[in-house]
Amino acid sequence: MRKIYVIGIGAGDPDHLTLQAAKAIGRTDVFFLLDKGEAKESMIELRRRIMKAYARPGRRVAEGRDPDRDRTPDDYQGTIADWRHRRSAVTEALISEHLLDDETGAFLVWGDPSLYDSTISILDEILARGETTFTYEVIPGISSVSTLAARHKIGLNRIGRPFQVTTGRRLAEEWPADVDDVVVMLDARQAFGAVDAQDVDIYWGAYLGTPDELLVSGPLAEVSDEIRRVRAEARERHGWIMDTYLLRRRDAG
Amino acid sequence: MRKIYVIGIGAGDPDHLTLQAAKAIGRTDVFFLLDKGEAKESMIELRRRIMKAYARPGRRVAEGRDPDRDRTPDDYQGTIADWRHRRSAVTEALISEHLLDDETGAFLVWGDPSLYDSTISILDEILARGETTFTYEVIPGISSVSTLAARHKIGLNRIGRPFQVTTGRRLAEEWPADVDDVVVMLDARQAFGAVDAQDVDIYWGAYLGTPDELLVSGPLAEVSDEIRRVRAEARERHGWIMDTYLLRRRDAG
Ligand SMILES: C[S@@+](CC[C@H](N)C(=O)[O-])C[C@H]1O[C@@H](n2cnc3c(N)ncnc32)[C@H](O)[C@@H]1O
Ligand SMILES: C[S@@+](CC[C@H](N)C(=O)[O-])C[C@H]1O[C@@H](n2cnc3c(N)ncnc32)[C@H](O)[C@@H]1O
Repeated sequence: MRKIYVIGIGAGDPDHLTLQAAKAIGRTDVFFLLDKGEAKESMIELRRRIMKAYARPGRRVAEGRDPDRDRTPDDYQGTIADWRHRRSAVTEALISEHLLDDETGAFLVWGDPSLYDSTISILDEILARGETTFTYEVIPGISSVSTLAARHKIGLNRIGRPFQVTTGRRLAEEWPADVDDVVVMLDARQAFGAVDAQDVDIYWGAYLGTPDELLVSGPLAEVSDEIRRVRAEARERHGWIMDTYLLRRRDAG
Repeated sequence: MRKIYVIGIGAGDPDHLTLQAAKAIGRTDVFFLLDKGEAKESMIELRRRIMKAYARPGRRVAEGRDPDRDRTPDDYQGTIADWRHRRSAVTEALISEHLLDDETGAFLVWGDPSLYDSTISILDEILARGETTFTYEVIPGISSVSTLAARHKIGLNRIGRPFQVTTGRRLAEEWPADVDDVVVMLDARQAFGAVDAQDVDIYWGAYLGTPDELLVSGPLAEVSDEIRRVRAEARERHGWIMDTYLLRRRDAG
């Protein structure tokens, strides 16, 4: 039987790798890499560095071309679902061509595989089709959200209270109901600008865990322009940006 | 200057330790342990095991008695806040007595320090009082929530959608507004029983990451009795239980 690891490798810091992840990497025969066709050099670099440090000699790398995807679709969920189907076809081909019987393959997933990542559902989709068989195991990783909280030295929740994790797209529509603590990911539109800044603090981080890490925090009304400026400069310099933030509504005093 | 690490050690599996955490443990002179006065042997055991493996010879352990706390208070937030004050006094005494100038201390925090943990706010409270000075750094860890998702091989979110993390206490009051994916922690009352089980799936896990791990998943209406039974038996056998779960409302098809 073929076996596949879905390994969370952390969101930027090579030292965020867990011992469990390092061991699984050491047992892997074939690493599957889907090239995003983008200039996210440091994401590719982290995987390369981790493989170099923990993979065993003789392991192979099977590279596939990630299908393109409409970045500003009208029907977001439909577009992503469609893209997943095409992606699962590419992935299935990679697995069935490169992973031999009784071998172990691995996907090195950015951050934690449970957070806004499609690897697990792609594997489920392949298994559901029933033509390519394997077992798989998921290894948790340090997410960008945990890293954000650690770098700002904050909790995600306040005592006994809930928090919500959402996307920039959703936040741009409205502040989620009945929560005062909101983590925002996948925000290409700086949706914090759409929020009523009154009584809200923001804890923002970009390139978390990497040497390029940027952190800004403070009352949203005061630091929102600074974040916009820092973000635009960094995006320009790197050619891309990954950022996430927590919005925290202050309690009426 | 004294330095303190707040180190997330994962929620049960010693291999969930990150390389960063292992390195910080290796640089620590004094480990601060607050004895919870409870029989959570395997929580203490994980810390002991991790120190044995990664701490340097000659490190010291400073143990304090965690102040008692009302487990079923009327005013939950007030009681926790009061308990934190007493806890910060005990913690401050430990630090000022045991951590010498230029030494490094560490708190080994269960799971990820950003999730329903008081260590960060206790240190902030001590620093705000201004009598005991130190710098501190937070090292993220694998949370019980990431472990739950990994073991069930699920994402916490669905495509482009939000999820909420909340407590059993809150869930017992109502299902959070406008989200269909809810992670529940700190649930001593099996609040999933208060939920309208129609169209809801549950992914439940206890003692995650440990050899005693228990997993149950399925339609809430079908498995809720099983979870109650498994949970009661395990709690009886171990004398305590730590469990968490994801509730996922199925989309109208
Ligand atoms: C497709 S999601 C994947 C998240 C990933 N699975 C995780 O656990 O962090 C990508 C989003 O994660 C956030 N992100 C990932 N890595 C980041 C980093 N190093 N710094 C800041 N944000 C990051 C950004 O919000 C980005 O839009
Ligand atoms: C005080 S909170 C601390 C959470 C911790 N900081 C984390 O990141 O997992 C304790 C709650 O976490 C959850 N929990 C912690 N460890 C767990 C484990 N090994 N298995 C299941 N649930 C766990 C339970 O819901 C428990 O009530």
